Amino acid sequence: MEKQALNFEIKKIDKKTGARLGVMHLPHGDVETPVFMPVGTQATVKSMTPEELKEEVKSHIILSNTYHLYLRPGHELIREAGGLHKFMNWDRNILTDSGGFQVFSLGDLRKITEEGVEFRSHLNGSKHFISPEKSMEIQNALGSDIMMAFDECAPYGASYDYVQKSMRRTTRWAKRCKEYHKNTQNQALFGIVQGGFFKDLRKESAKELAKLDFPGYAVGGISVGEPKEEFLDILRYTTPLLPENKPRYLMGVGSPDYLIEAAISGIDMCDCVMPTRMARNGTALTHFGQVNLLNACHAKDFTTLDKECDCYTCKNYTKAYIRHLFKAKEILGARLLSIHNLRFLVNLMENVREAIKQDSLLEFREEFYKKYGYEIM
Amino acid sequence: MEKQALNFEIKKIDKKTGARLGVMHLPHGDVETPVFMPVGTQATVKSMTPEELKEEVKSHIILSNTYHLYLRPGHELIREAGGLHKFMNWDRNILTDSGGFQVFSLGDLRKITEEGVEFRSHLNGSKHFISPEKSMEIQNALGSDIMMAFDECAPYGASYDYVQKSMRRTTRWAKRCKEYHKNTQNQALFGIVQGGFFKDLRKESAKELAKLDFPGYAVGGISVGEPKEEFLDILRYTTPLLPENKPRYLMGVGSPDYLIEAAISGIDMCDCVMPTRMARNGTALTHFGQVNLLNACHAKDFTTLDKECDCYTCKNYTKAYIRHLFKAKEILGARLLSIHNLRFLVNLMENVREAIKQDSLLEFREEFYKKYGYEIM
Repeated sequence: MEKQALNFEIKKIDKKTGARLGVMHLPHGDVETPVFMPVGTQATVKSMTPEELKEEVKSHIILSNTYHLYLRPGHELIREAGGLHKFMNWDRNILTDSGGFQVFSLGDLRKITEEGVEFRSHLNGSKHFISPEKSMEIQNALGSDIMMAFDECAPYGASYDYVQKSMRRTTRWAKRCKEYHKNTQNQALFGIVQGGFFKDLRKESAKELAKLDFPGYAVGGISVGEPKEEFLDILRYTTPLLPENKPRYLMGVGSPDYLIEAAISGIDMCDCVMPTRMARNGTALTHFGQVNLLNACHAKDFTTLDKECDCYTCKNYTKAYIRHLFKAKEILGARLLSIHNLRFLVNLMENVREAIKQDSLLEFREEFYKKYGYEIM
Repeated sequence: MEKQALNFEIKKIDKKTGARLGVMHLPHGDVETPVFMPVGTQATVKSMTPEELKEEVKSHIILSNTYHLYLRPGHELIREAGGLHKFMNWDRNILTDSGGFQVFSLGDLRKITEEGVEFRSHLNGSKHFISPEKSMEIQNALGSDIMMAFDECAPYGASYDYVQKSMRRTTRWAKRCKEYHKNTQNQALFGIVQGGFFKDLRKESAKELAKLDFPGYAVGGISVGEPKEEFLDILRYTTPLLPENKPRYLMGVGSPDYLIEAAISGIDMCDCVMPTRMARNGTALTHFGQVNLLNACHAKDFTTLDKECDCYTCKNYTKAYIRHLFKAKEILGARLLSIHNLRFLVNLMENVREAIKQDSLLEFREEFYKKYGYEIM
């Protein structure tokens, strides 16, 4: 058999939940799963160096955004630079999304046809067209280790008819992506299950995509604004529909409770911009809930952010100092909280993996939720 | 003799120029001179961690601003935090200015009397009063290794009468500072020579301050907007007036040529916000002149900033990538250029020290100027 970019090894499946402990063998090193992937939208995880991501956050895979890089600096420039890894000085794994999510978020600025999507740049209004083939071409130029098929993420609240049409087109597009993408030895292409909040459509989507035998599958189109009950319902329904022996990726998630629930449902990978965005706004994730450093109560708080955290920020700085940095609008404030918040989520998944090993994932969830202030649903 | 915070050792004086090679033994380690000190106005060198300052910039002393820290977060808070070193996680040396320069820059917002200066905060308009004693109290609370006497920096273009009155008051204030400051074992207090662009006033200022036997002396009130000829004229006149066996500090300088000229005139220490401010605006100092990364010509420039630089940025990133970060308004751009620009100036002074050792300082200047595009004046 020909060498493939991705080999996925499942070490253990938790009998009580279906959670999986695994390793993705990828071109830029191994990634243990379940894993949280920091997001580096514009070829940089905001405010961080690659060394900090490795040494402080302890991340083995990050995500970058095809739409943004296509517009700026352009995928041809990144190809000339020797690919995205070299361009941004990151020698571990990169997953790129398909560009679809951002393009579809443009609302009035885009027009969908069977061929693809015409849209105007959010930067300068210039006209562009992305098809499944174009998305593959861009991601091939970027040279990411995991690529995503071009899909439409239907908005929350879309009608059954709309979602059905959209999901079936996404399936046809997935075929076109697979046909176009040749570099399967170095770049693994994942399919994306859509179907909105309609279970029969999720089932159809999963079944049709499974036939295409992608090396991995994502669940798209949830965590898009719906209540947590609906999120959990569709997550728990959809995840087991995905091929068991392939990595399963829940896109755009997120908060500590969603990450834990994802793992419990059998998801292997997640990503979200939330930890770095919250960091830039002065909010820390901690084992005892969120902490807003701008609150006056932290002005003379000479303790660290989170006594259970092992990160650079928690080893070296007090809440009073970090608060001062935010009040004084100093860049270092965003840096220190970004390190902490990313480390918090990467470490959370390390703890989830350990709990799966120890057959104690549900107990881990209970304890974590109690300290953090979440309720089990 | 009682232990003093500062012991200054002169290793060599360059016969051709009067430049000095020395070491300041200070409470937080030795500092080789001539030295450039990065500025950390608000208890942080903008965008940098202390580790980067140590490991990448290779800095042994930084400057912080009394006025800013007094207003925010307040010197009493920093005292409670255990002092500025602990607050900001920097265990090497800190020099604090007196707050005078910033207060006098407030223009209409301040009123000078013999007692001190009344002013309104630039942050919220609240009323404050800083006297020489208050400046000492604040700097004692901050716990800096080198403190500066409270002085008035007369504006460029001020009349002889104004500068004379101001300089004589600065001398009286220096006496009051010396009387107030008791913690001389841990904090060395420097006097500041003023006198504007009037040589007889510079002479009087230097002579009167010398009588007070400060452990170090600064030249204030130049590099305040005057033409380079005038700067050099007053620098070359004033520096030799300062006591020979004490460190000599030129405040608020600066650019590579000014640093080299300062060293040649016999100055031991300089500081400036320029390298980090330029960095945040996308401009790099290099051995071949300034480089503005926003210029389109760098879009596909896959070479490093400065092939003669040994910094983290130059080891790992291309101009094309750094330009992309600036175009995309990513924080990492300011970080990478701040590391580079600070390393450039700290390294420049390392090279100046090496040239003094090798009796080749004037040749070093000639070569440096030729490459950079400066002319000798």
